Amino acid sequence: MVPVTAADVAAVHPRLAAHVRRTPVLELRLGDLGLTGEVAHAPLVAKLDLLQPTGSFKVRGAVALLTDPALQERLRAAGVIAASGGNFGLAVAWAAARLGVTATVVVPSSSPRAKLDPIAALGAELVLVDGVYADAFAAAEGSRAASGAVLAHAYDQPQVVAGQGTSVRELLASAERLDTVLVACGGGGLLAGTIAAVADRIRVVAVETHGTATLHTALAAGQPVDVVVSGQSASSLGARRIGAHAWAVRDRLAAALLVTDTEVADAQRRLWQAARLVAEPGGAVALAALTSGRYRPAADERIGVLLCGANTDPGSVAPVPPPR
Amino acid sequence: MVPVTAADVAAVHPRLAAHVRRTPVLELRLGDLGLTGEVAHAPLVAKLDLLQPTGSFKVRGAVALLTDPALQERLRAAGVIAASGGNFGLAVAWAAARLGVTATVVVPSSSPRAKLDPIAALGAELVLVDGVYADAFAAAEGSRAASGAVLAHAYDQPQVVAGQGTSVRELLASAERLDTVLVACGGGGLLAGTIAAVADRIRVVAVETHGTATLHTALAAGQPVDVVVSGQSASSLGARRIGAHAWAVRDRLAAALLVTDTEVADAQRRLWQAARLVAEPGGAVALAALTSGRYRPAADERIGVLLCGANTDPGSVAPVPPPR
Repeated sequence: MVPVTAADVAAVHPRLAAHVRRTPVLELRLGDLGLTGEVAHAPLVAKLDLLQPTGSFKVRGAVALLTDPALQERLRAAGVIAASGGNFGLAVAWAAARLGVTATVVVPSSSPRAKLDPIAALGAELVLVDGVYADAFAAAEGSRAASGAVLAHAYDQPQVVAGQGTSVRELLASAERLDTVLVACGGGGLLAGTIAAVADRIRVVAVETHGTATLHTALAAGQPVDVVVSGQSASSLGARRIGAHAWAVRDRLAAALLVTDTEVADAQRRLWQAARLVAEPGGAVALAALTSGRYRPAADERIGVLLCGANTDPGSVAPVPPPR
Repeated sequence: MVPVTAADVAAVHPRLAAHVRRTPVLELRLGDLGLTGEVAHAPLVAKLDLLQPTGSFKVRGAVALLTDPALQERLRAAGVIAASGGNFGLAVAWAAARLGVTATVVVPSSSPRAKLDPIAALGAELVLVDGVYADAFAAAEGSRAASGAVLAHAYDQPQVVAGQGTSVRELLASAERLDTVLVACGGGGLLAGTIAAVADRIRVVAVETHGTATLHTALAAGQPVDVVVSGQSASSLGARRIGAHAWAVRDRLAAALLVTDTEVADAQRRLWQAARLVAEPGGAVALAALTSGRYRPAADERIGVLLCGANTDPGSVAPVPPPR
């Protein structure tokens, strides 16, 4: 496996311009999020990738893959196939519809209809497979082998990793100066892309929940191993193990932090209170490292954070209403 | 009454920089919002003032008033008083807390606690008055006369109008080129500020709902008259009559449009679907003119829209979940 480089991210970036949004950034102070003391005046530059089409950054990787010049012949002949009933499946369906590619999305039959209907509405063929995600992925691999379709991997494929790296690349271009960026890690596609794009210039900090700790578990074991996934962030960060791309660049991480589900829910509520933004649990994991105090900025440190997904019931992020 | 000018807006703008956000803009295509046909490729530049502290653009006017050099002596001696149980009351309480000014907010006793608790939490003194908004305003005027406090008017005061005009001023500075901006009208503070700031350069279109049609009613009557307020946008756009500042510049409007409550709710849902943004009804009224087809852009026309408030239950903007 050849690690993705900053040059790879730069090379795919122009292919995305006609399709995904160059999402805006919002500059906050940590005090806006309810933090007190010395850190209250520390700036925070939030990249609003939760405003992307389909509600997550995943469209970046999907478009990067489907616009790869080397794949066009296969894509025209046999289409794309992905295994995901979540944000990546939706992103592949969206990108395929936009680019005129036939898409098949294989999902576990246990997936809630609310997640599947938008994928079907985009024209993708839905294939339901009994079992869990791993069974769906095995079925997708088998189908790819038979049909010649391009297999899209949610987090461990060079084009996808390079596409995800464009988010932090835009963040750095928008912000005056950043010292550190906080990024959520599930399978590690966004993390690997972020490291490739900017780890030579700023510190990259990975954040996971205890229930989706693929990176921490691998670091403890000395190699990628399967984890048991749980918690509210599992729907977007619940990969079974860290991807090879993220694992290959672990030494370039400035830190790897863990947050709890409660801290993530608190970060979601603070973000709504401070700026009326809705983040799904996985989309607020990186922010939770700050709001929980698990990441403590140095004096004058300028922090960026990738707010990467909003696919949740928006009512779930509002504070508990006061008693009447 | 001396109308607010572009120079007035430019003059207050630097006073706001340390307090309110220079909110980002998001460029969409009308097709992203589900519009089809020729207009699908038309660009739409949305000013995200719904990401402001307190969830609405109203902090602009409140800060503009409370930082007026000519008022500092009175503000230090006797504070500020406002009548509003809604977005303006919250904005005045927030700005006063930030600037160290004593604030009193007079509200009708019928106001829901969910609206009042955040105002009290910011340290403002809440005064409950029996009756409706007009009774609260009369009480605030009486109290101001007795105490010498500065009275803050939600939409018809030069400093407030000039402050609201900074939103579109930033929009024009951010966007490559705009031909037209759509703006909601209630009492007309944002509208008057917008006209002052940019009507010499681009077309300004006012949008109201049938239940909050202060401008249309005044235009029909030939003068400002009281209206009976109703509908879901009333909590933010429900002024009893158009302000003198907006009325004075009505001839500079390119158009004045009406939308229905159903069209506003549809615009809220489309905005969530397209970009995962939550707008309150009043915050989506201007957008509704586009999504309903009541405003039809010309070929190549570049439209801006002020998304000006998000103070609603975020769960209310999600599409109806599909049947299981």
